[in-house]
Amino acid sequence: MNTFGRKFRVSIFGESHGEAIGVVLDGVQPGLPLDIEDFTADILRRKSGPKGTTPRIEADIPELLSGVYNGLTTGAPLTILFHNRNTRSGDYSLFNAVPRPGHADFTASIKWLDFNDPRGGGHFSGRLTLPLVAAGVVAKKMVAAQIRAELIEVGGVTKAEALREEALPDGGIEEKDQPANIWRAVLDQAMADLDSVGGIVECRADGLPAGLGEPFFDSVESLLAHAVFAIPGVRGIEFGDGFQAARMRGSEHNDPFDRVVDSGFQKNALPSKNGAGGVNGGITNGNPLVFRVAFKPTSSIGRPQETFNFATGKMTTLRIPGRHDTCFALRTPVIVEAVTAIVLADLMRLI
Amino acid sequence: MNTFGRKFRVSIFGESHGEAIGVVLDGVQPGLPLDIEDFTADILRRKSGPKGTTPRIEADIPELLSGVYNGLTTGAPLTILFHNRNTRSGDYSLFNAVPRPGHADFTASIKWLDFNDPRGGGHFSGRLTLPLVAAGVVAKKMVAAQIRAELIEVGGVTKAEALREEALPDGGIEEKDQPANIWRAVLDQAMADLDSVGGIVECRADGLPAGLGEPFFDSVESLLAHAVFAIPGVRGIEFGDGFQAARMRGSEHNDPFDRVVDSGFQKNALPSKNGAGGVNGGITNGNPLVFRVAFKPTSSIGRPQETFNFATGKMTTLRIPGRHDTCFALRTPVIVEAVTAIVLADLMRLI
Amino acid sequence: MNTFGRKFRVSIFGESHGEAIGVVLDGVQPGLPLDIEDFTADILRRKSGPKGTTPRIEADIPELLSGVYNGLTTGAPLTILFHNRNTRSGDYSLFNAVPRPGHADFTASIKWLDFNDPRGGGHFSGRLTLPLVAAGVVAKKMVAAQIRAELIEVGGVTKAEALREEALPDGGIEEKDQPANIWRAVLDQAMADLDSVGGIVECRADGLPAGLGEPFFDSVESLLAHAVFAIPGVRGIEFGDGFQAARMRGSEHNDPFDRVVDSGFQKNALPSKNGAGGVNGGITNGNPLVFRVAFKPTSSIGRPQETFNFATGKMTTLRIPGRHDTCFALRTPVIVEAVTAIVLADLMRLI
Amino acid sequence: MNTFGRKFRVSIFGESHGEAIGVVLDGVQPGLPLDIEDFTADILRRKSGPKGTTPRIEADIPELLSGVYNGLTTGAPLTILFHNRNTRSGDYSLFNAVPRPGHADFTASIKWLDFNDPRGGGHFSGRLTLPLVAAGVVAKKMVAAQIRAELIEVGGVTKAEALREEALPDGGIEEKDQPANIWRAVLDQAMADLDSVGGIVECRADGLPAGLGEPFFDSVESLLAHAVFAIPGVRGIEFGDGFQAARMRGSEHNDPFDRVVDSGFQKNALPSKNGAGGVNGGITNGNPLVFRVAFKPTSSIGRPQETFNFATGKMTTLRIPGRHDTCFALRTPVIVEAVTAIVLADLMRLI
Repeated sequence: MNTFGRKFRVSIFGESHGEAIGVVLDGVQPGLPLDIEDFTADILRRKSGPKGTTPRIEADIPELLSGVYNGLTTGAPLTILFHNRNTRSGDYSLFNAVPRPGHADFTASIKWLDFNDPRGGGHFSGRLTLPLVAAGVVAKKMVAAQIRAELIEVGGVTKAEALREEALPDGGIEEKDQPANIWRAVLDQAMADLDSVGGIVECRADGLPAGLGEPFFDSVESLLAHAVFAIPGVRGIEFGDGFQAARMRGSEHNDPFDRVVDSGFQKNALPSKNGAGGVNGGITNGNPLVFRVAFKPTSSIGRPQETFNFATGKMTTLRIPGRHDTCFALRTPVIVEAVTAIVLADLMRLI
Repeated sequence: MNTFGRKFRVSIFGESHGEAIGVVLDGVQPGLPLDIEDFTADILRRKSGPKGTTPRIEADIPELLSGVYNGLTTGAPLTILFHNRNTRSGDYSLFNAVPRPGHADFTASIKWLDFNDPRGGGHFSGRLTLPLVAAGVVAKKMVAAQIRAELIEVGGVTKAEALREEALPDGGIEEKDQPANIWRAVLDQAMADLDSVGGIVECRADGLPAGLGEPFFDSVESLLAHAVFAIPGVRGIEFGDGFQAARMRGSEHNDPFDRVVDSGFQKNALPSKNGAGGVNGGITNGNPLVFRVAFKPTSSIGRPQETFNFATGKMTTLRIPGRHDTCFALRTPVIVEAVTAIVLADLMRLI
Repeated sequence: MNTFGRKFRVSIFGESHGEAIGVVLDGVQPGLPLDIEDFTADILRRKSGPKGTTPRIEADIPELLSGVYNGLTTGAPLTILFHNRNTRSGDYSLFNAVPRPGHADFTASIKWLDFNDPRGGGHFSGRLTLPLVAAGVVAKKMVAAQIRAELIEVGGVTKAEALREEALPDGGIEEKDQPANIWRAVLDQAMADLDSVGGIVECRADGLPAGLGEPFFDSVESLLAHAVFAIPGVRGIEFGDGFQAARMRGSEHNDPFDRVVDSGFQKNALPSKNGAGGVNGGITNGNPLVFRVAFKPTSSIGRPQETFNFATGKMTTLRIPGRHDTCFALRTPVIVEAVTAIVLADLMRLI
Repeated sequence: MNTFGRKFRVSIFGESHGEAIGVVLDGVQPGLPLDIEDFTADILRRKSGPKGTTPRIEADIPELLSGVYNGLTTGAPLTILFHNRNTRSGDYSLFNAVPRPGHADFTASIKWLDFNDPRGGGHFSGRLTLPLVAAGVVAKKMVAAQIRAELIEVGGVTKAEALREEALPDGGIEEKDQPANIWRAVLDQAMADLDSVGGIVECRADGLPAGLGEPFFDSVESLLAHAVFAIPGVRGIEFGDGFQAARMRGSEHNDPFDRVVDSGFQKNALPSKNGAGGVNGGITNGNPLVFRVAFKPTSSIGRPQETFNFATGKMTTLRIPGRHDTCFALRTPVIVEAVTAIVLADLMRLI
């Protein structure tokens, strides 16, 4: 279903080229100040930078249809709507016959018996991450923790490598503040090749209380992974030492309680290492929550692809028309933050 | 909570050193033949091999308390019980004051206000994977697909490397049939060092229909990741090309529909590549479902660890008494299969 | 929460005097023809008749924001929006200090810490039954059964009594087709007294398959009662013989299988009595589903009421300004049908 | 499904004549003292009195399999088991061919394709209310409120009438303390007629905080009705004035805030009437929660019944062998209390 959460529940709806997309938030904490401007920063972070991004520009101004009164959340379901504009639906009719490799064109048709809206990917479009980001803005207000995600790798180049490579006379550090600039070389090359690249996002939440989550099926990792895999294009998630943990010894990976804190009347301790990423036995341990998410390269590419035409029953050379988003991963840190905030808001409402 | 699933629902209960552990399965398909012997193979797979495994031996014979009549499932809730025997509860009192690094001793006490049963890890014990495996036996009967997981890496050594290394005069291929033999060198070294190692499991489900799962929050990846992170010790999960996808070009990672099948009256096509691991847009595409799971090294190790004593307020050298499971990952393929079968049984009941 | 259902999920939102109210339907069957006109009949049934009804007139034209493409449902979430117009928000400020007896003014303030929107009852308004009715229109299309609810009693006068009384020279049977006409006498009297009346609705679903529902917690009665009590103003629900069953002997109330049907190659039987209302052990038995719902008299009345003023700390005489809906129950048959269809659509998606 | 609740979750299992019945409670508050003896009183209340009750006697001693340590709940799932003894399974084979009127024999076979366990009603047996009662014992400990249900009518005779009738020389008030004594006349007559009677239970919860529940789908009435209809034999539920409210004027049914409480520094008010049964807009208002539940007469009767034999395709005279429970309703007050406590414990865990 298109719903997540038990006490703080998020329901997304809409299609890429339909009339509107949006989200209903149920279980919002009453009394939070909320304004259209609160959404601007995160919506802009999700938008395209100067290079390596999608050509489609939407005004993307949220309408708050319900759940806000006198600038404060009421506790009632909060509905956020984005009207679609600037849609060019003529582009997509081809994909009924020739489903795009890597896209949901084929599976959507199977699932919904060919009744799905094919325009712009319909309900399966990455555009549906916009209401997710809007939901995240509200969720972040409900969670005292500091949640911050950033790209740590694009197209196989780590952030450190990218910054090192670009330390050239003509490269100024000031134009490096945005991912699209930091990884300009790899993005430019991919664009020149009419191809796309993926990336890895690291997310960190500081200031969480210990004790969130449950053993087994509602572990914090279970809930976060559930929500993160709702983002299109995710191929993997790992916590703390992640896959590398499988190559470590227990004596390396374990986090002894060695960061002693003396509160005056009582001594306490936390691990100084964080191989577990802030979770033991499914429950937060007071350390920062840390995890990484792998995003595949954007599926839509300019390069021709040899694939099947279900209408003719023959292989064909597919050339997807239009310009393409070279790296969807550039937009994803704010989306990962959003789903993280949604999970945490839900967990903290449950307490 | 300790429950997973909507139409096929699994609820686990019990503590490592309590009277019994078990599972209630709701929504079981009626009419399945089910017998105590059906559980033997998977229960044995979860048990310890000759080396690198836990010293505790349990009879582990399931009792079917409800939901089976005349050797067939009835449709009513099916309860499987395992009585605990051979428990040595004296070993664990120490861990109230000195929570073991990497274990849930600390978080369980926070969560449950020090009322948790500390013996053998209580409800947080890896022993609770036994009812999961039993649930998997029933779930596998409900799912027509072939689900098979195996270790592909232990202690940083891939299966191919391990088999190559051991091609020595004194190593016979016949004794290599079990993971504990394949990776004997790395396991022996870890045991000699009083340390532990982790591993990576690959799971594959063949024969699934296309169309399972949903876009966004109930994607197949979301549900599987949710269930997989319920297994203790998981640090990461990845589908298809996984994290490596983030380093690929779109033209490499995309799966064109190029495996044309001519059924006589109609031509059809599937991808020959499977970079997506069998899922597009959250929905199965007819290709095998493929994912990998990273398991951390076992937390309990013989080596001394410097950590905090919450009773004395001082650092201490913790020596966990008893023998230890050098590599919990050895037991996990059958557990990964079980949760996969549970997810698929739930998805297929929903249709 | 404001959500109901597992496979067919309904989420309502909005406030009486906010910008819009609406509903998101998830799990809609793909391929259903759906048009604005499909909603007209049920929306009109929910609206006020000439007498005994609310003075507020809304255009109430649904906007289909998502989930419909080329006049057919797609399978994606279907969003239906109603913009509010004709709101007079000045009327309601008083009720912060003097919560109206029988309304949710008081409990909403407790629940949502005084941040609730008080205008027109805010999210607690009976106006939220409009999106429920719209959801019912879609749900009815998904359920093959014939669902029909009607008023059987208003203001303590049964339908038979009302029709008998009105068999006067000046009363024509032709103007009796609407409940507001059938019960004109009792409604006129209540209006003259500046008071209100309640009523009882009977709902019946014909053509349901046997086998829907579950024993115990997801019995058909449990699910229907859950949904019916979501309608404002419901005070009771009973199935089949209902409360009267408590006064019957087993030999009277039991439904023997005595309606033998000979299908040619096989004989079958159903009960000719329907004391159970179509459900045994929580599961439909093939007989019509029959239940009755009691609606309280409308809470807003013109008569002065002695009640507490929380601002002054003194008792006061409350005179609720404006005209009032003499009998909300008149509008409820279509709402009861809607929630019934929602429950059945969810149950039938689950199969 | 056989599960109820979100944060406090109850899963029942077992069959009447299987090895055991029981319940798993998830989300139990840690640190509650819990002992076998805590269950005795409520289990005895559910048992048969001297007359008008079932002949089957079970020891019914609960086994606490998990979730309790050192006499205190741990927070982990709490499993309560009752082994079945004294079962006479030979009695029930007949009902495969001749489903008992009023029982679930027919619908269970439809639902579970004839694989259901028919012995003693299998999973559909009233015996499954025993684990519900046990769950209620734990739930009551989690809820500060005073929950008390009692029979107010049996076989059409109200409690007041029954007490009046029996004020005879030979009837002592001291032997009237149990329902089976209070209604002895009506029970004796039904037994003599080889027939059964139903009854009405009133439940009241005092001491609840205002603010529990939600508008619409998770109203307190919705949740309670959902849980109450899980009890076998329920035909109706009503809150406060109930069905009678439909016959009242608004001015009669409304509950003005006229019970002024002066706490010294602040004045507050509650309604002195309780026509709403303690709930407005789905949310508790601080008044006692009050509702009534109608139970049908026991389905199993000694009187012969004319019904269909599905094996022979002919009508037959069914004589259900054995002795019968003249009035199941006698046992139900403690069951109604249990499900009420379960709902309230879940609601209060959610806060």
